[in-house]
Amino acid sequence: MIRDHGGNLDLAQERFGGRLEEWIDLSTGINRQAYPAPTLEPRHWKALPSPSDIAALHTAARQAYGCSASVLAVAGAQAAIQLLPHLAPAGRARILAPTYNEFAPVLTAAGWQVDEVGEIEALAAADIAVVVNPNNPDGRQHEPSGLLALRSRVKRLVIDESFADAVPQASLAAEAGRAGLLVLRSFGKFYGLAGLRLGFVLGSADDISALDAMAGPWPVSGVAIEIGRKALLDRDWADTTRARLEMDARRLDALAVSVGWRLIGGTPLFRLYDVGNALAMREQLARARIWSRIFTDKPNWLRLGLPGHETEWMRLSEALSVC
Amino acid sequence: MIRDHGGNLDLAQERFGGRLEEWIDLSTGINRQAYPAPTLEPRHWKALPSPSDIAALHTAARQAYGCSASVLAVAGAQAAIQLLPHLAPAGRARILAPTYNEFAPVLTAAGWQVDEVGEIEALAAADIAVVVNPNNPDGRQHEPSGLLALRSRVKRLVIDESFADAVPQASLAAEAGRAGLLVLRSFGKFYGLAGLRLGFVLGSADDISALDAMAGPWPVSGVAIEIGRKALLDRDWADTTRARLEMDARRLDALAVSVGWRLIGGTPLFRLYDVGNALAMREQLARARIWSRIFTDKPNWLRLGLPGHETEWMRLSEALSVC
Repeated sequence: MIRDHGGNLDLAQERFGGRLEEWIDLSTGINRQAYPAPTLEPRHWKALPSPSDIAALHTAARQAYGCSASVLAVAGAQAAIQLLPHLAPAGRARILAPTYNEFAPVLTAAGWQVDEVGEIEALAAADIAVVVNPNNPDGRQHEPSGLLALRSRVKRLVIDESFADAVPQASLAAEAGRAGLLVLRSFGKFYGLAGLRLGFVLGSADDISALDAMAGPWPVSGVAIEIGRKALLDRDWADTTRARLEMDARRLDALAVSVGWRLIGGTPLFRLYDVGNALAMREQLARARIWSRIFTDKPNWLRLGLPGHETEWMRLSEALSVC
Repeated sequence: MIRDHGGNLDLAQERFGGRLEEWIDLSTGINRQAYPAPTLEPRHWKALPSPSDIAALHTAARQAYGCSASVLAVAGAQAAIQLLPHLAPAGRARILAPTYNEFAPVLTAAGWQVDEVGEIEALAAADIAVVVNPNNPDGRQHEPSGLLALRSRVKRLVIDESFADAVPQASLAAEAGRAGLLVLRSFGKFYGLAGLRLGFVLGSADDISALDAMAGPWPVSGVAIEIGRKALLDRDWADTTRARLEMDARRLDALAVSVGWRLIGGTPLFRLYDVGNALAMREQLARARIWSRIFTDKPNWLRLGLPGHETEWMRLSEALSVC
């Protein structure tokens, strides 16, 4: 039941050896310069999260995302995807593709008729329409105004903004209160803390209330609630990180171009390149203990997250110069 | 949507004041002498949990619970309850009551016809039959053999063993591979780490596979996976804790009897007493910053978790001697 995802260092180790700590995992879009974990009080590990803890996290999320609508914290954007099929009786879902490979099978497994379409126009008349913006893995971006116009032409429009923290101008979070619009946010990618399992759904009061009932009490750990709240309120860190990621993305592109790769697209958290033989390139990088993401149906695509500290840049540069 | 639960210190503070750290929360059955949190590597916060991390946790859970069947880690036993209604088309659910107040509304909300019954016999012919064993809040225990016999008379038998760690002889974990039997386990209560959000479902390969697909990848945090694995493998701690909880439960009963309360039942993690006017007693304890659990439909019932360290016993003793 496990589909192909980035971040699976098990496979890297199994195939290419090495100790876990030797590997640089660039197979995901998770920021490798994580938000520094604050000191925690024991109650965050020991006690059930309280309604006021959760309310404070929701307030922080609204502030960070520029959203005045209802918000629900869940155990990662993935957890929100798992709930989507149960928000309405199974009907017709349309997904703008190619994109993140979890929407289609999760909806299909719950009885939905799923079509993957290539253009926004073709999403019209769906009971659930899904757009990942910016898109994973190609970074394709859609104008917020165009997406808003689509809202009235579908029953429910789901915008997955898992990679929007680095490009806030692309976000529809400010519009999330409108009926029929749901915005998914990931905490772990931009803040580099994917292991905490934290994400959010922003939407109308009715939809959020229904999702809340399905998620049940305490879906998120006390540790994630406390770290998430502090991180989301830290605007300075977010601004500095956005600027740094933009610069680093350009640096990675320059490195890639210098070895003859072609940029297909990306976000400041990951870049997608045409590298010719992606399988061979992945193995080349893997021999240097750098893990990358390839795609079975796109033999020339290779996706790379951004290296973190300078030593990681040096190792990547060396691994590429060998090519 | 929030139902009345123990552990809600928000309400205690709002009604009776005091700083959060002044309160002793005895309103839950969460062990107040928690498993000592080990030092964690940064990857448990930063990276997505890997399949091998999750597999190691499952192995530890099977070992701790004496179970050779399929296992799925979820974000607390509550997360398993949220998935139950979607395991089969909505039908007839029967719940042995009174018990934990989440099963009935979660099943009802998903379209199930729910009956609460008072005796095991009345569960027969249900599509889902639910027994909490030992039961919360009254500690009622059922013989494993009697429950096993029930299995063939219902479509699916769900045994919630959230409080079974302290009374392992009551557990059906060893039988969990049989078709139609699902066993739920809570990690946070016995190990005193409810804020981590970790629990397990033990069951047949088919049921666990279906629940796995519904929970999706990464439902549990890397922190919970690592601490959970270590704790579940620590048999010495579990044995010592079981012995200590048994002694402490007797100590609490002795204290209760000395002030004229009558023991209704309990487990080594909580005790239920007939205290006469439970509302007045809760207020008496709350003035000493000790939070207890009462039940709207049982005006003489008061449930207490066990105090942790000696200072907590002294404060409880003093609060009761004032009565």
